[in-house]
Amino acid sequence: MECAGEVMKATIKSIAQECNLSITAVSLVLNGKPNRISAETKKLILETAKKQNYSPNQIAVGLVKGKTSTIGLILSDISNLFLAEIAKIVEEEVKKYKYTVIFGNTGDSGQREIEYIEEFLGKNVDGIILLHSSYVTESEEKRIIELVQRSGVPFVMLDNDITVSEIFRCVLDNEKGGYLAGTHLFELGHRKVGCLLGPMGQCSVRDRLKGYKKALADWRIPFEEELLYYGDFTIQSGVMAMPYFLEKQVTAVFSYNDMMTYGLYTYAREHNIKIGTDISIIGFDDCFINNLLEIPLTSMKQPRVEMTRKATECLISLIDGNKMKKNPIVFDPELVVRSSTGVKS
Amino acid sequence: MECAGEVMKATIKSIAQECNLSITAVSLVLNGKPNRISAETKKLILETAKKQNYSPNQIAVGLVKGKTSTIGLILSDISNLFLAEIAKIVEEEVKKYKYTVIFGNTGDSGQREIEYIEEFLGKNVDGIILLHSSYVTESEEKRIIELVQRSGVPFVMLDNDITVSEIFRCVLDNEKGGYLAGTHLFELGHRKVGCLLGPMGQCSVRDRLKGYKKALADWRIPFEEELLYYGDFTIQSGVMAMPYFLEKQVTAVFSYNDMMTYGLYTYAREHNIKIGTDISIIGFDDCFINNLLEIPLTSMKQPRVEMTRKATECLISLIDGNKMKKNPIVFDPELVVRSSTGVKS
Repeated sequence: MECAGEVMKATIKSIAQECNLSITAVSLVLNGKPNRISAETKKLILETAKKQNYSPNQIAVGLVKGKTSTIGLILSDISNLFLAEIAKIVEEEVKKYKYTVIFGNTGDSGQREIEYIEEFLGKNVDGIILLHSSYVTESEEKRIIELVQRSGVPFVMLDNDITVSEIFRCVLDNEKGGYLAGTHLFELGHRKVGCLLGPMGQCSVRDRLKGYKKALADWRIPFEEELLYYGDFTIQSGVMAMPYFLEKQVTAVFSYNDMMTYGLYTYAREHNIKIGTDISIIGFDDCFINNLLEIPLTSMKQPRVEMTRKATECLISLIDGNKMKKNPIVFDPELVVRSSTGVKS
Repeated sequence: MECAGEVMKATIKSIAQECNLSITAVSLVLNGKPNRISAETKKLILETAKKQNYSPNQIAVGLVKGKTSTIGLILSDISNLFLAEIAKIVEEEVKKYKYTVIFGNTGDSGQREIEYIEEFLGKNVDGIILLHSSYVTESEEKRIIELVQRSGVPFVMLDNDITVSEIFRCVLDNEKGGYLAGTHLFELGHRKVGCLLGPMGQCSVRDRLKGYKKALADWRIPFEEELLYYGDFTIQSGVMAMPYFLEKQVTAVFSYNDMMTYGLYTYAREHNIKIGTDISIIGFDDCFINNLLEIPLTSMKQPRVEMTRKATECLISLIDGNKMKKNPIVFDPELVVRSSTGVKS
């Protein structure tokens, strides 16, 4: 057989042709099945396979074993600093167990989340790590839970929570995060504090607000609806929120993620507003860049490495058929104080 | 048949059981094959399939069609800001053509790059977008080229180049980037300029240096070997390079990517060095955060959206069987001046 060069894909057939042997013989050897083929012939087959750069068809292997060694990762936006770091950790962790990651950006849409779940299940992934979307209608949520339950495929939810307890979850104690953020600002003397909320469809956002309200109550500060701004976790919504807060004469802002604070910073820079003195800002996530900003950003650190490692570990364990309780595994946030928050002047 | 609940995976068999029909009948209907099955029975099969949340086994479909609708994306580190943005664009673009992305972080190692190529080929991806690693031995490079050529699977290289012309490529005019960066600093009066190099295994790094040397020659400034620092594109190598440059009394630094400049900034902040006045810094990539840094960073913008779109478009076209010339498609860098570079004092 002539080497067909670039476009030739090695198969059992092409190896059989080059060796002038039967397909059965080559198949038996390459698949490690019992056979009576001579050592010499075996050597020829293996060397030819190597020469032709043969790799077993994993699709066929997957069909037989019922495994594809592939994990699905569904998240809103891989270019969000926090989520990019999570994606990296997931890939590094599952690689240890010989899994590959396929991923999808939902843009926080429940509809796209459903599409990805269906698509990944259709590709027979062995498990899915789901960072649940923010904009999910009731019927979409129902459909997602149904897909998870009926698929027979292990799911682990990370980061954002879902309202039912039937999915395995690794989540942050977001209520505590909101409480700590509020307390920090109140201790600095701030009383008129703006909340730059994330999408209210997220459990995590509602829990942060709940914790924040608890801190308000502890300090006997009245809750003011008009100090809430409904953002969407993007830089752009931070840019748009800043003039609103300035008009309301807040002295501090609690932003529900870091990406939005970068928008607050953008507006502040353009309008010569001094963060930390004119206005205090606290973020959430604690992305790596926070220490290098014009005014280093105070933020609520999520233990992303530990959370993500735990989530992948659980998923692998579920794939291996282990039974686990569906109680959520809850992680603690940690306040990292930098110069973007200061005493109320 | 009783519904087995959570762990039940819908199959043709489970549908046949519930409908009390033969597997053949169900298979004919669900696979759209010609048949003589009554409309009523068809309806029952389709409704049961829907109820059981049946999705056709894409693995089996892939075996028949020889397609998996999956694209491999191989890059060094998805948590690098620049690469995270590229990953997002790739995923969004191929989604339009109903492809999913699997990705792997090589950590810039040639060995891991080979492993991912082999693994992805083993998973029968339809094409691969390869951001070539920096630390590749000669034999690894040879092996990679061999894999690309023999696989019969379309590859498109993005970002970093490879020394052979046998792979389809979308790349930046890195030489021009190096030339523009050098020229900008020389125009500001800097003569003692440190170069914070990336991994020399990268064509892109060597080309940036080549362009920089050309600018030196145009300005009749002697090239000084000792003003080069060999970094590795991580923040950490920026932190380590800064004291080296200070000792050499440079007045400016040309950093070969933005991630390393964040390391230079970290060191400068800790040692109270004023960027833009005490020392000028220019980066490369122009990540979104540059405008929000303590001193907004001057950087060489890569048209990442256009480059990445073009690369995915080419890959899809190659997958569809179109022939294309293997000439690289070259994109122009653009200098974005901010306050991290100033006139030499």
